[in-house]
Amino acid sequence: MAADEPREPTAVTDDGLRLSSTSRTEAFSDGVLAIAITLLVLDLHADVSAQGSLLQTLLRQWESYLAYFTSFLTIGIIWLNHHAFFERLRATDRALQWANLSLLLFVSFLPFPTAVLAAHVGDPGLNGRVAAALYGLAGTLMTLPWVFLWRHLARAPHLFRPPFDAAFARREAPRAWIGVFAYLVCAGLGFVSPYLAAFLYLAIGVFYALTSQGWSSLPGRRRRPAPDQA
Amino acid sequence: MAADEPREPTAVTDDGLRLSSTSRTEAFSDGVLAIAITLLVLDLHADVSAQGSLLQTLLRQWESYLAYFTSFLTIGIIWLNHHAFFERLRATDRALQWANLSLLLFVSFLPFPTAVLAAHVGDPGLNGRVAAALYGLAGTLMTLPWVFLWRHLARAPHLFRPPFDAAFARREAPRAWIGVFAYLVCAGLGFVSPYLAAFLYLAIGVFYALTSQGWSSLPGRRRRPAPDQA
Amino acid sequence: MAADEPREPTAVTDDGLRLSSTSRTEAFSDGVLAIAITLLVLDLHADVSAQGSLLQTLLRQWESYLAYFTSFLTIGIIWLNHHAFFERLRATDRALQWANLSLLLFVSFLPFPTAVLAAHVGDPGLNGRVAAALYGLAGTLMTLPWVFLWRHLARAPHLFRPPFDAAFARREAPRAWIGVFAYLVCAGLGFVSPYLAAFLYLAIGVFYALTSQGWSSLPGRRRRPAPDQA
Amino acid sequence: MAADEPREPTAVTDDGLRLSSTSRTEAFSDGVLAIAITLLVLDLHADVSAQGSLLQTLLRQWESYLAYFTSFLTIGIIWLNHHAFFERLRATDRALQWANLSLLLFVSFLPFPTAVLAAHVGDPGLNGRVAAALYGLAGTLMTLPWVFLWRHLARAPHLFRPPFDAAFARREAPRAWIGVFAYLVCAGLGFVSPYLAAFLYLAIGVFYALTSQGWSSLPGRRRRPAPDQA
Repeated sequence: MAADEPREPTAVTDDGLRLSSTSRTEAFSDGVLAIAITLLVLDLHADVSAQGSLLQTLLRQWESYLAYFTSFLTIGIIWLNHHAFFERLRATDRALQWANLSLLLFVSFLPFPTAVLAAHVGDPGLNGRVAAALYGLAGTLMTLPWVFLWRHLARAPHLFRPPFDAAFARREAPRAWIGVFAYLVCAGLGFVSPYLAAFLYLAIGVFYALTSQGWSSLPGRRRRPAPDQA
Repeated sequence: MAADEPREPTAVTDDGLRLSSTSRTEAFSDGVLAIAITLLVLDLHADVSAQGSLLQTLLRQWESYLAYFTSFLTIGIIWLNHHAFFERLRATDRALQWANLSLLLFVSFLPFPTAVLAAHVGDPGLNGRVAAALYGLAGTLMTLPWVFLWRHLARAPHLFRPPFDAAFARREAPRAWIGVFAYLVCAGLGFVSPYLAAFLYLAIGVFYALTSQGWSSLPGRRRRPAPDQA
Repeated sequence: MAADEPREPTAVTDDGLRLSSTSRTEAFSDGVLAIAITLLVLDLHADVSAQGSLLQTLLRQWESYLAYFTSFLTIGIIWLNHHAFFERLRATDRALQWANLSLLLFVSFLPFPTAVLAAHVGDPGLNGRVAAALYGLAGTLMTLPWVFLWRHLARAPHLFRPPFDAAFARREAPRAWIGVFAYLVCAGLGFVSPYLAAFLYLAIGVFYALTSQGWSSLPGRRRRPAPDQA
Repeated sequence: MAADEPREPTAVTDDGLRLSSTSRTEAFSDGVLAIAITLLVLDLHADVSAQGSLLQTLLRQWESYLAYFTSFLTIGIIWLNHHAFFERLRATDRALQWANLSLLLFVSFLPFPTAVLAAHVGDPGLNGRVAAALYGLAGTLMTLPWVFLWRHLARAPHLFRPPFDAAFARREAPRAWIGVFAYLVCAGLGFVSPYLAAFLYLAIGVFYALTSQGWSSLPGRRRRPAPDQA
C-alpha cells in the first residue's frame, strides 16, 4: 500500500454521521477475544502445588475443567458470531463502536466469574449458589450488547453490505434475546442447584454453536433463499 | 500480495527524513492495548479464595470493580483515540514512533496503579491517599505523549493525510493538555479524599469518551465543516 | 479499501455450503497461538521468591526450563504448520472452523500440563508418572484436530487452492496420526519413567520441526515435483 | 480479497528453495512481542499486598521499576528493529523462520530474568550477582539470533527487496555482535557490582534506541546515500 494512497476512507452520510471502515475494529476485537480465551487457562494452575496425590488433585478439580471448557466454548462462539456479524457490515458508526467495546468489556470480565464458578460451585450453602448466579449474570451482561447491536442495525441499515437489510436485523435480534433470558433463568436456577446451572451454561454454549451463523443454519431452514445465504 | 511487489514503501522527504507507513505500528499498538485491557481482569481474582461468605467477599471488593471499569474505559478510549489519530496519518517518522512507544509504556503500566488503587483506596491514613495519587500520576504520564504527538504534527504536517494540517493539530492539542491537568488535579485531590479521586478518574474517562473523535463531536459543534468532518 | 467495496466475499457451492475467506480465522488463531506461547513464561516465576541460594534455586528448577522449551517449540511448530496449512486453503467452511477452534482449545490448555510436568516430573511415586502421562494426553488431544482437518480436506478438496487436492490431503494425514500415536506411547512410557517421557516430548517437537512444511521437506524427498513444491 | 484470488503466493528459486511472503510471520511476531512487553507489568504486583506503609513499599521496589523500564525499552527496540528488518525483505525461507522463532523464544523468556533481577539485584552476597548475570545471559541469547539473521542474509540476498544486498547485510552484522559482547561483558560485571550491571542493561537499550534503523541513523552518518536511506 503506497504511503500516499488513501486508506480506510471514512464516508459521511447525508446527516453528517461519521462512518469508519471496520478493519481495525475487527483487529482490536480479535486481540481482546483471543487474549480472554487464552487467559482462562491461568486459573487451572492454582491448585497444582497442593500436597498429596497429584492424581486426586487433578480429578478433584473437575469443576475447573468444566468451567474452563464452558467459557472457552462461549468466547469461541462469540468470536464466530463477531466474525459473521462484521462480515455483513460495510462500515461502523460511533454507537456500534461503543456497543462493541461494551461487548469486549463483558467478555474480558468472564475469566473472573469463571474462576469463581470453578472454585465455589461445589461449596455447600449460599456460596455455591452465589457462584452459579454470578456466572449467569455475567452471561446476561455479555449477551445484552448483541441485542443493542441488532436493534441499532435495524435502524441504521446503511451500515450493512447488501443484501443485508433492516428486515434481516429484525430477524436476528430474537437470538440475542434468547441468550439474555437463558442466562437470567440459569442464574435463577443457580439458587436451586449450582451444578445444574453450571451444566446449563455449557448447554447454552452448544445452542449458540449450532446457530453461530444465524438462524438459517439450523437444520431444516437451510434451503430458504434468505439474504444470509447469499 | 505478490512476493515481488513493493510493500509498505517508505518515502524520503527533502531533508532525508525517513518515513514509514503506519500499518505495522497500528498492529503492534493494537496488540499492546488489547492485552493491557484484558490483563486487568487478573486483579479481580486475588480475593476470591478467601474464607467465609462469598457474597460478602464479592460485594466488599466493589472498589476492584470500579477500578477495573475505570481502567477498561480509559484504555478503550485510548484505543479509539489511537485509531482516529492514525487514520489521519499517511506516514510515521522516528519521533512519532518513540512517542507512540512511550504511550504504550504508560498504558501497559496502568494495570499496576489500578491494582494498587483497588487494594488500597479504602485504607485509612496515608495509604489510601498514596494509592489515589499514584493512579493520577500514571494518568498524567499516559496523557503526556498525546501532547507531544499533536505538537510534533503541528511542526510535521506532511505526516497527515489531506485535508488535515498543522492548524488541525493545534486545535486538537488542548484536549491532551486538559487530560494532563485533570489527572494532576485529581492526584492532588486524592490527598483530600481517595474515593473522590477514584470517581473523578471515571469521570475523566467519560469526558474523553464524549470527545473521542475530536472536539467537533461535542454536541453543538457537529455542523461546523472542519477538516475532521471530511 | 473503500468502505463501499466488497470485502472478504463468501462463496456458495452448489449444495448451498457457506464458505468464508480465511484471513480473520488466521488472525484470531495467530493471536491465540502467540498468547499461549508467551504465557508459558509465567510458570517460571513461581519459585524465585524462595529463600536461600538463588543459584541453587535457578539450577534446581531445570525441569521447568525443559518443559518451557518443549512447549514453546511445540506451539511454535503448530504455528508453522498452521501457517503452511492455511496458505494452501482458499476458503474455510464450518467443519474446518470448529476443528480449528478445538485445536486452539487444546493449545491454550497446554500451559496447564506444562506447569504440572515442570512441578511434578521429579516427584517420587505416582505423582511424577501422572504428570508425565497428563502431558502426553494433552499432546494427543492437540494432535487429533489435525487428523480431522486432513480427513475433512480429503472429502472437501474445493477448499484447497490449486494445485493442492484430495490426494495431497491423504498423503499428509499420516503425519498427524504419527503424532497422535507418539504422544499416546509417551504417555504410557511416562508410567515407566517420567523423565524419559519428558525428553521424548521434546524429541516429538524436533521431529515435527524437521517436517513442518510437509513430508517433502525431509532430506532426500526434496526434488520430487509434488504439489507442495509449487 | 476474492476467495478465489491467489493470496500470499510462494516463489520457488532455481534450487527449489521454498519462499514465503512475510506478512503472517510479522503478524505472529508482533503478537508475541506485544504480549511479552505487556506481561512485564505482572511482576510489579507482587509486593503490593504487603503490610505497612504503601508509600515505602512503592519506593522500596524501585529496582522493579528500573527492571520493568529496561525490559520494556529492550523489547520495544527489538520490535522496532524487527519492523525495520522485515520491511527490507521480500520473502522468508525456513532458516529465517527458525532464526525468528528462536528470537521470539528468548524475548518471551525475558520476563523471567527481569523478575529475578527486580527481586534480587539488591541482595547481598552471591544472589545479587547471579540475578545480574542471568539477565546478561538472557540478553546475549536474545541478541544471537540477529547475528545469524544478518549472516544468513549475506548469503541469501535474494530474500531482500532491492536495493538492499549482501553488502548491506555485512555492514549491519557488527551491530548485532556489539550487542552479544555488550551483554556478555555486563553479565561479567554483574559479578563485580549487580547495580552497575542493571544500569548498563538500560544503557544498552539506549544505544540500540539510537541506532534502531541501522548505523546510518547515527548523527553525522545521515547524509551518506547508503541503501538504507532509499
